[in-house]
Amino acid sequence: MARVYNFSAGPATLPVEVLEKAQAEMLDWKGTGMSVMEMSHRGSAFVSIAEDATARLRRLLDVPDDYSVLFLQGGAAGQFAGVPLNLMGERHTADYVVTGNWGKKAIKEAGKYGEANLAASGEADGFTSIPAVSDWNLSSNAAYLHFTPNETIQGVEFQDVPDVGDAPLVADMSSNFLSRPVDVSKYGVIYAGAQKNAGPAGITMVIVRNDLLDQAQAACPMVFNYKQQRDADSMLNTPSCYAWYICGLTFEWLENQGGLEAIEKINIRKSSKLYDYIDASDFYSNPVDPAVRSRMNVPFLLADDTLNKQFLAEAEEAGLSTLKGHRSVGGMRASIYNAMPEAGVDALIDFMRTFAKTNG
Amino acid sequence: MARVYNFSAGPATLPVEVLEKAQAEMLDWKGTGMSVMEMSHRGSAFVSIAEDATARLRRLLDVPDDYSVLFLQGGAAGQFAGVPLNLMGERHTADYVVTGNWGKKAIKEAGKYGEANLAASGEADGFTSIPAVSDWNLSSNAAYLHFTPNETIQGVEFQDVPDVGDAPLVADMSSNFLSRPVDVSKYGVIYAGAQKNAGPAGITMVIVRNDLLDQAQAACPMVFNYKQQRDADSMLNTPSCYAWYICGLTFEWLENQGGLEAIEKINIRKSSKLYDYIDASDFYSNPVDPAVRSRMNVPFLLADDTLNKQFLAEAEEAGLSTLKGHRSVGGMRASIYNAMPEAGVDALIDFMRTFAKTNG
Repeated sequence: MARVYNFSAGPATLPVEVLEKAQAEMLDWKGTGMSVMEMSHRGSAFVSIAEDATARLRRLLDVPDDYSVLFLQGGAAGQFAGVPLNLMGERHTADYVVTGNWGKKAIKEAGKYGEANLAASGEADGFTSIPAVSDWNLSSNAAYLHFTPNETIQGVEFQDVPDVGDAPLVADMSSNFLSRPVDVSKYGVIYAGAQKNAGPAGITMVIVRNDLLDQAQAACPMVFNYKQQRDADSMLNTPSCYAWYICGLTFEWLENQGGLEAIEKINIRKSSKLYDYIDASDFYSNPVDPAVRSRMNVPFLLADDTLNKQFLAEAEEAGLSTLKGHRSVGGMRASIYNAMPEAGVDALIDFMRTFAKTNG
Repeated sequence: MARVYNFSAGPATLPVEVLEKAQAEMLDWKGTGMSVMEMSHRGSAFVSIAEDATARLRRLLDVPDDYSVLFLQGGAAGQFAGVPLNLMGERHTADYVVTGNWGKKAIKEAGKYGEANLAASGEADGFTSIPAVSDWNLSSNAAYLHFTPNETIQGVEFQDVPDVGDAPLVADMSSNFLSRPVDVSKYGVIYAGAQKNAGPAGITMVIVRNDLLDQAQAACPMVFNYKQQRDADSMLNTPSCYAWYICGLTFEWLENQGGLEAIEKINIRKSSKLYDYIDASDFYSNPVDPAVRSRMNVPFLLADDTLNKQFLAEAEEAGLSTLKGHRSVGGMRASIYNAMPEAGVDALIDFMRTFAKTNG
């Protein structure tokens, strides 16, 4: 079968150039006579792969010198524990702003390690908007403020970095990481599971300001200890080597697209045309406040939800895969990360238009 | 370049058939139009991959029904915390038998979560033997006894399962997992990083007896919580999908070799011929008690260690890669896991013989 347009929320579509390169190098990486999967992580070949990927990520995000970049196992969900274990220190309070399912999970996990204060929540209106920063109920002594710049399930995205005073900002950037330029200097910690915009599942990037490195709680597992992992170049134990390599290829692809400024323009164009079509339609709707709609994850409902099954079946047949919405929201969701070609969004809109005409 | 014989201790050589299949399926897994790396872990395609891999592992090890099989992130080093976090419960004491570097790391990490009692150690004689079970200093109230059936660095391997009474046995089986049949029913928990005999780095198997599942400490990160992960089929968060898939291909390859009884015979033959050659030589030596020599990791010293550099360079040139010993032991180490062909061991012995003749 030909490649489909895969709208999965993550793991998600990867650039075909990345997959082709990985395929070509599978049995023999650059004349070493072995696959990247088989290489000692301590050997010069893999170390060069890891260093190259790290340098590319630093370039893409223009990471300041006083930040460390880690590639860890455990997923963003692992960091739901990793962040408080590393940052709550002796202050034992942190503020959480919850704008969707992932923020809810993050604050719940943080409660194991200290006082996790719900500073604001969008739950009252079903996570279709983001409470104004002026209404956030901030602690005076928070070790950090945690938020989720893009909520994958609800399709809600911060369009600006919230200004919250002294507490270091901690962002679970999993689902809009590398989709737009970021001023890293405004954050204490940025973390992101790779499986949306950066590579395959199984590796998690953590970008941490160096002054926050060395204050882990005694109970912090060593694999999650930022300081120890930084001192070991993320190789305190064997890292997720192959995923790191694929991330490097994805970063290379992204640099070849022109970097984050260039990809942001494309992401704005892709998401705008899809939202514009939905808003102009009587057949489809998106409930999210237009000011905070996600460029990455576009949930939409059919006016008649008895047609959902037929929509999904016909979409699949048309080569438009994994459009089913999350069960907590219902309907459909089109995840249109960096690697989704604009032609994929065009094909989706064409299909939606035809489906509406036939069934409306 | 042609494929080399890769003696890396891990990540380690994989069966070429596994890599070829992964290569062929890279852009389109079985007509889905997408790579395994791109699949939603909740979709039917990936769920079938995960279930198939899990079923194959259960068949290979004949895992009893009252055990759960998990595929987690974090490595065996993650489980150094995961085991005490899940098993120490309110008893807060566990016994550790240390027969090499990995056991030392495990007991150190366990000390964060309770009383980790050093029941026995082989350190006094440089980890070249294993203390007799009758000399172990066992606690009366241990929640479990932890040991390392094969120590990758020292090349020391238990040839029998120690009989220690009531405390559940917990084994870090990373480096001899799937190299021989195992009576799983004798263990409380078996865990293993994949990157020796089971697949690529980034995924860790945990086989846990069900009555031990539900006693995690409050501080246990959810990604390490055995009960929660079991209830979620190891998908509490996004798993290391591609590594899981490669493990499945490796399990399939192992079944095609005839399973663990068959591979054990080959492993005995491979390791015996290498030890026999070393023992018969004046030029090479292995310091480990012959009764507990590892079938997987064969460290050896050159009589004249000023020749080490030359040995490694000429071996590399002969297509024999990654033979350098761990810095804590020195000399050389040949890791000869399941996927190392017998021809690779023969080629190594031939090379060693020629090198000794030329330089002895």
